[in-house]
Amino acid sequence: MPRYKLTIEYDGTPYVGWQRQKNGLSVQEVLERTISEFAREEVTVFGAGRTDAGVHALGQVAHVDLTRAWRADTVRDALNAALREAGGVSVLAADEVPDTFDARFSARKRHYLYRILDRRPPPTVLKGHVWWVWRPLDVEAMHGAAQRLLGTHDFNAFRSVNCQAKSSIRTLERLDVRREGAEIHIHASAQSFLHNQIRSFAGTLKLVGEGRWSADDVEAVLASADRTRCGPVAPPDGLYLTQVDYEG
Amino acid sequence: MPRYKLTIEYDGTPYVGWQRQKNGLSVQEVLERTISEFAREEVTVFGAGRTDAGVHALGQVAHVDLTRAWRADTVRDALNAALREAGGVSVLAADEVPDTFDARFSARKRHYLYRILDRRPPPTVLKGHVWWVWRPLDVEAMHGAAQRLLGTHDFNAFRSVNCQAKSSIRTLERLDVRREGAEIHIHASAQSFLHNQIRSFAGTLKLVGEGRWSADDVEAVLASADRTRCGPVAPPDGLYLTQVDYEG
Repeated sequence: MPRYKLTIEYDGTPYVGWQRQKNGLSVQEVLERTISEFAREEVTVFGAGRTDAGVHALGQVAHVDLTRAWRADTVRDALNAALREAGGVSVLAADEVPDTFDARFSARKRHYLYRILDRRPPPTVLKGHVWWVWRPLDVEAMHGAAQRLLGTHDFNAFRSVNCQAKSSIRTLERLDVRREGAEIHIHASAQSFLHNQIRSFAGTLKLVGEGRWSADDVEAVLASADRTRCGPVAPPDGLYLTQVDYEG
Repeated sequence: MPRYKLTIEYDGTPYVGWQRQKNGLSVQEVLERTISEFAREEVTVFGAGRTDAGVHALGQVAHVDLTRAWRADTVRDALNAALREAGGVSVLAADEVPDTFDARFSARKRHYLYRILDRRPPPTVLKGHVWWVWRPLDVEAMHGAAQRLLGTHDFNAFRSVNCQAKSSIRTLERLDVRREGAEIHIHASAQSFLHNQIRSFAGTLKLVGEGRWSADDVEAVLASADRTRCGPVAPPDGLYLTQVDYEG
């Protein structure tokens, strides 16, 4: 039974998130329906990261098992032809992989981008795809504070009350904050993240950028492991799952 | 009666274009309504470029006369607060200008960007904001052919049948074609353009990028001044009015 690795891009705006839910259409459901129609069998798609409602992906990874062995390019093109009508989800690549490959559990590193549009006028062409912050933010202060979060810590202060992970200890490998024209880009990398961790980082770093919090404040919140002390969770619009790395 | 220069950004997707029309909502109408409500007087807004339905702007310029003298920043912020609800139109800047300033007739140069997404999978987050071309295009060939169009020519072959300009002679100052990741960007600059001129260029250069037309073919079409010989007009989705230059 051949296994396929799918690299997927999507606009999260119209979806309830990656994961199947009863309250609306998810990206997982769209993919499962499309693959089922193409392969004429029931399938389950397993994703590397459970993005929330409104969160986008430029490089989500999923795996699926099919009974029949299709050429990987055929899988990609057939799915894209069917997905085009629904809109908003594209298969960037399909590759046949050994059945030891698991999109979620084999992942070595996940990379996310958080985009802030930092300017006084509201977004137009970028609406739904950035977090609009009209106050000018101090990017160097944000980057400096972000560096205090690197390494292995209990990130309990920076996770959702709904987070289901047993342990809140994670190792943050990268949290860079850079200005790109009118935008501020936050690049985050780790083997895995807690639920809402990056949006909690973004909301907290915004307070630093506004001069309301210092890097010491951020470090104190981290040390407290108290999620009531975290800054507000930033909206999903600005968040993109950009890449998932695997062995080899 | 003070005159204001407005620099405007908009997502053209939901609009029938810049100019007021009976068949739907235009950007001009949205602005005129918003300014009239704010200033409590009937106003007419004059734009530098009449973008078509679905065409975007990152730096459209318009002027408007108001009876009362408002602070320019107040005009910008009040309009943005009112425009936010409608969504899709933002005032990037408002400046008080002499009444000799005319957004259309004082313009020295107009700059446009045409974005092609050149990859096999359809767009998701960029849907409506790029022209999706799934065949790999030869960007160097496109750029080379584009250079044959520079200078002062009769561009009759590259304008819409609906173009109302009396003369089809224009001076094209820049037509650069560059790859930017999975995108191809066409940068076009001139004092003024004919209706559909840049979309006609983009559609024609795509044929060159596919290897179906040569640079000589493009030059022959230009010399013919025969609009039936032009390549297909590219869709509005990829076109952005990026900047309008004025004296001083």
